Amino acid sequence: MNSVLNEVLMANRDYASEFDKGDLPMPPGRRFAILTCMDARLDPAKFAGLTEGDAHVIRNAGGRASDDAIRSLVISYKLLGTREWFVIHHTDCGMETFTNDIMSDLLSSSLKTASVDADGWHDCCEGPGSHEGRYINWLTIKNQAQSVLEDVVRIKSHPLVPTEIPVYGYIYDVRSGRLLEVPEASAAGR
Amino acid sequence: MNSVLNEVLMANRDYASEFDKGDLPMPPGRRFAILTCMDARLDPAKFAGLTEGDAHVIRNAGGRASDDAIRSLVISYKLLGTREWFVIHHTDCGMETFTNDIMSDLLSSSLKTASVDADGWHDCCEGPGSHEGRYINWLTIKNQAQSVLEDVVRIKSHPLVPTEIPVYGYIYDVRSGRLLEVPEASAAGR
Repeated sequence: MNSVLNEVLMANRDYASEFDKGDLPMPPGRRFAILTCMDARLDPAKFAGLTEGDAHVIRNAGGRASDDAIRSLVISYKLLGTREWFVIHHTDCGMETFTNDIMSDLLSSSLKTASVDADGWHDCCEGPGSHEGRYINWLTIKNQAQSVLEDVVRIKSHPLVPTEIPVYGYIYDVRSGRLLEVPEASAAGR
Repeated sequence: MNSVLNEVLMANRDYASEFDKGDLPMPPGRRFAILTCMDARLDPAKFAGLTEGDAHVIRNAGGRASDDAIRSLVISYKLLGTREWFVIHHTDCGMETFTNDIMSDLLSSSLKTASVDADGWHDCCEGPGSHEGRYINWLTIKNQAQSVLEDVVRIKSHPLVPTEIPVYGYIYDVRSGRLLEVPEASAAGR
């Protein structure tokens, strides 16, 4: 067994050995949900003060209001009773470091050059512009406050999102651990 | 300010006041990623032994390998260097409690009846079959082991996923806190 897998399973054994949360109900006790980034430096339970059972946490690259995030939020509301949502992006986000074109080119060069095999990428999609990377919107970010605002507006204006849900817009500062409000986003989210 | 927002901001103030992780690099230190459910009872940092900076955590309703989850995983690998991935679904998942048809009907009745206004749903999409809920695949789950296997296979066979990445398939037991391997999924993920 490799080391990462082994470490995770050992840590889980320790967690389970002292586990006393086996009777929690399915709906989030504090009736809210957080949409944030997958970034390794973010621990939403710690930075927002959550314990097991409190709140839904949805995470993807950037913390973006993708169709899949909205699928999750609608389920969170309609089936599991959350009534307030947070959109939290963060400083120094990887999504600011590239563009759709750069990602397409990166994937494209991996697919087309001799490094394909060494790199392990499938060889299914050769030829300029023919691979799937070019058809994906990677949801990159140019400006954090702008991306938070955009995502709050996208959520609030979605036809399956109830009008009365407040959506708060924040930026998490990876240097200080602080949540900084994006006032325009919170205003749009009311 | 309402109570949930106030509580989150107070908890964040406490977290930031003792924050000492301001120098962590962007790429995950332990070079792996976890895809799991948004369920409030799951704390991946605790159940898998993560500290800030260790690993990407991607979460949605069900922990499903949606296009958006795969977008995030490809970025995790290609730009930020993760080399092993976990797919972790869980017992007593909300996604087992309904079907696409039930969700469509639920949304449909909210949109069509007098409860629309009381419930706060937008009134944009009235009429049988005309609202967006019917066009969404909610990615419900019938059987956890099967859904983990399906998602590992979907990830492994995606044209933008490198062949050599191991994808481990597990079910988290919300009663015991234990991770239980889905051997067929882990076999498919190798």
